[in-house]
Parts: sequence; structure tokens; C-alpha cells
Amino acid sequence: MKFRRSERLVDMTNYLLEHPGELVSLTFFSERYQSAKSSISEDLTIIKETFEQRGIGSLTTIPGAAGGVKYMVSIKEEDAATFIDELCETIASPERLLPGGYLYMTDILGDPQTVNKVGRIIAARYAKANVSVIMTMATKGISLAYAVANYLNVPVVIVRRNNKVTEGSTVSINYVSGSSKRIQTMVLSKRSLVEGSNVLIVDDFMKAGGTMKGMVSLLEEFKATVAGIAVLVESEHNEERLIEDYISLIRLSEVDERDKKINVSRGNYFLNS
Amino acid sequence: MKFRRSERLVDMTNYLLEHPGELVSLTFFSERYQSAKSSISEDLTIIKETFEQRGIGSLTTIPGAAGGVKYMVSIKEEDAATFIDELCETIASPERLLPGGYLYMTDILGDPQTVNKVGRIIAARYAKANVSVIMTMATKGISLAYAVANYLNVPVVIVRRNNKVTEGSTVSINYVSGSSKRIQTMVLSKRSLVEGSNVLIVDDFMKAGGTMKGMVSLLEEFKATVAGIAVLVESEHNEERLIEDYISLIRLSEVDERDKKINVSRGNYFLNS
Repeated sequence: MKFRRSERLVDMTNYLLEHPGELVSLTFFSERYQSAKSSISEDLTIIKETFEQRGIGSLTTIPGAAGGVKYMVSIKEEDAATFIDELCETIASPERLLPGGYLYMTDILGDPQTVNKVGRIIAARYAKANVSVIMTMATKGISLAYAVANYLNVPVVIVRRNNKVTEGSTVSINYVSGSSKRIQTMVLSKRSLVEGSNVLIVDDFMKAGGTMKGMVSLLEEFKATVAGIAVLVESEHNEERLIEDYISLIRLSEVDERDKKINVSRGNYFLNS
Repeated sequence: MKFRRSERLVDMTNYLLEHPGELVSLTFFSERYQSAKSSISEDLTIIKETFEQRGIGSLTTIPGAAGGVKYMVSIKEEDAATFIDELCETIASPERLLPGGYLYMTDILGDPQTVNKVGRIIAARYAKANVSVIMTMATKGISLAYAVANYLNVPVVIVRRNNKVTEGSTVSINYVSGSSKRIQTMVLSKRSLVEGSNVLIVDDFMKAGGTMKGMVSLLEEFKATVAGIAVLVESEHNEERLIEDYISLIRLSEVDERDKKINVSRGNYFLNS
């Protein structure tokens, strides 16, 4: 049975969105819809234009017998900025202040629409960085790591503070927490990461960067490379920053528990672009 | 600027997929594309037919001034069965056996394509159950809970084993773990769940169901109702099952550590339908 163009457009859009970063051959679509490759090519031109115009993503066509089409996620600069400005306002609410100058962000990290948008912004920046794995520290960053992984279509590995029987044999390292200066342990299942992986580290929050530095050391144990480090919120502080090369979407510069004041602004993401 | 039908179809498909469970008014689309409502209605008919034919989901049209269209995720019965059978084979690999009869599933729970498919199967079953929140226990079930939440477009709340300063004030309960008979604690941030929520509990693994029963008790403290309980893998065991009403996608009936044998089959999901 043949498919009309309109049906093909709907199904192809869904298929491409579900397989970001994957090279899909024209033959696959041509057989899926019992349609000539020339028609498929025309479909893809329409999808490409709409994806670009709407900031949904880019479609790259690789010519030749082994070629095909690849969808990569993107976001319009102004959409990202508007969204982050709104999120800054949400975060700056005095009700979020917890004892010790911490911020309540659990609701934000549990809302799929918000987490997906943040994930999209981060994934868009690393879409061409050949990321093979997303890594995060349990537990608050997991939803965000998973959202980024979803858009880049790569697996997530989760570093823990302690051993669990369901993880099998593990590699563990000690590291110094940046702000509290305490020695802590982090653990990663041995079989969760293959040698030579190119890893994007994603987390919800960074202060001095001790945990991030720990994760970088852990990657060395696995002979893996760091594709990048991305955090939703970085918090300004008086001590030396332990890592240099990272992107942040939001910057917390002043948390005054007594006056219930939080100063929130755009992170360095918008400077680096 | 006017949009052609082909462009509208691509963008509407993306928009609907990104907003499952949301009622979108025809006026919204009509303004977004500078097109007559009659054209939008025709577009939606095409999308509806393709979504249903391909098992992507259902489109429900609510007529009247306050009406609109609502996308809900679905999956074809045979696609779900094929996928689960393949996953059974993956899980039955003897290399997954860990000391103590545990199974290594970390890679499965870290792979977005797999987790999304599992999430889709669970979400499809509860698409009409008015779920307002997904709840899971840290940390292994988080990716799965998040995938289900994504398809149902509702927030995730995460129950923990211990207090964290970033959670604010919490409610905690003690419960008896079903298999080890030990008394354990679970904790949920007070502001993470509003009274009257209708909660779908999602987890990766269930043995006797002690943790599940604990989560149900915790929900009573929050005056919330249980919309359902869904697990990826249930493990057969000799003791009494502590909860009755749940769905499982996969059933583990025999884990023989010595002979490196695992018996894996379809869960009760395929009986209940």
C-alpha cells in the first residue's frame, strides 16, 4: 500500500524525532512507505525547512550509497534566552531558600517540560561533539542527564556515593569536596563505561566544582575523554573554581538567608555562543 | 505569513508530540499558522489517521468553544509484545547474574531508546487514568519514571532512603522490606506532593513488594490516591506478595546462580489487556 505525502510527513517527523543523531537511509523510508526515493527526498526537504524555521533541529543529508539523513536537535538562541530568563525568575523566589543557603529545586528537576527544555539547550550545544555517553552523579541530576541523553540518543551512566549490589564490580575514587573540603568517595560500575568513551558530564548544580573534578578523575580510570561539562545552575563562591571548562545556564551570585534575597542571572552559556 | 499544509503537518506533529495530554485549542494552531480553522481541522484528521495507523497515539477532538485537540500516547499490542520478548532475551543473558542472585540491569535502564519504549508501554496503559504525578524510589527507577512522566506530561517525585538538606522539610515513614524483613525508612519532601494527587508508582524491580507497600503508605500521609503500580521486572519468590494490584512487563521466575540460569518471561501486562 502506498502512502500519501501528508501521511509520510507526519510519520517521518515522528520517526526522526525519535531517532536523533542516527543516520537513516533513504532506502529505509522508501521501503517503509513504498515510495520512490525522489519523493522521499522532497519530503525531507520540506521537513528540513520546517525544522530549521521552527528551531526544532537540523537535517543533514549524507549523499551516496551509504548515505542518508540525520536529525540533530537545536534551539533558537532567543528561545533559549527567554526560557532561561523565565527560569531565573522562578528560581529567585524567596520561598526556595532552605536553611544553610541551599535552594529548593526538586520541583523544577521533576517537571518534564522544564527538564526537556534544559536538556534540549544543553544537547544543542553538544550535538556535533561526538558525545557517546552522558554521566551524572546520583540523584538530583539524573532527570536532566536523561533528558540530554534522549536528545543526543546516547546512554546515561550514574556515579554513586556508595556501592550497590546490583551494580556488579565497581571502580571507586576518593575526592575532595570543593566547598566542605571533606574527603568523599564516588563509585561507578565497571561495566557501565567502555574504554575510549567520549563523556558529557551533566549535573543540576555546581559550587566549587569538587564533584565535577572527581568525575573527571573517575573518567581517567576508565580511559575515557571529557566531551564537556554542563550544569543547570552554578553558584558563585569565594574559593577557587576547581574546574575551568564548563557551561552553565544559570548563575547564582548571592544567597542571603537572612534577608531572603537570591540573585540569579544567566550563566556563561550565553557568553560562549 | 501563511503556512503550507505540508509545513503545518510537520510542525503540528512535533508540537503535539511535545505536549501529550494537553488540550490544544484550534485557535492556537489557527493563529500559529495564520490559517483557517477548517484547514487546521483537515490537518488534524490526517495526523489522527497516521498516528492511529502507526501506533504513535490517539488524537481526541473536544468540540465547542472551550474545545480543542488532545494527543495521548499509545502503542500497538504486537509492537509492545515484540519489544518485551526481545528485552526478555537480553535480560536472560547469564552474564547479567550478580552474586546473591541479583541481575545487572544498569545498562538497560541507562539506554534512552529502551527506557522510552518501556515508558511508552506503561504510559499507554495509564493514559486515561488521570494520573497527576509519577512516584519512584531513588535511584534505579528514576530514568523509567521520568520516561513515563514524559509521555503523560506530569511531574516526577522521588522518594529517598534518607534526608537531604536540599529537600527542605520532609515526611518519613518506616516500613518492612518484603524480602529481607528489615525495617527501613523512606522519605519524601513535603512540598513535592500536593494533597489529592493521583499517583502512578513506577519502579524498575519488585520482589515481595515491600518498597511498593511502603510507597502506598507514604501516599496516605499525603492524602494522595494510587492511580496504579507499574514495574519493569517482577521477581517470583516464595513469600506472600505484599501488594496485589500492579502491572509488570517482565517476570523473573528462576534465578539459579550456580547453573547460571535465568528464567524470564512476559509479565502480567499482557494478561490484563
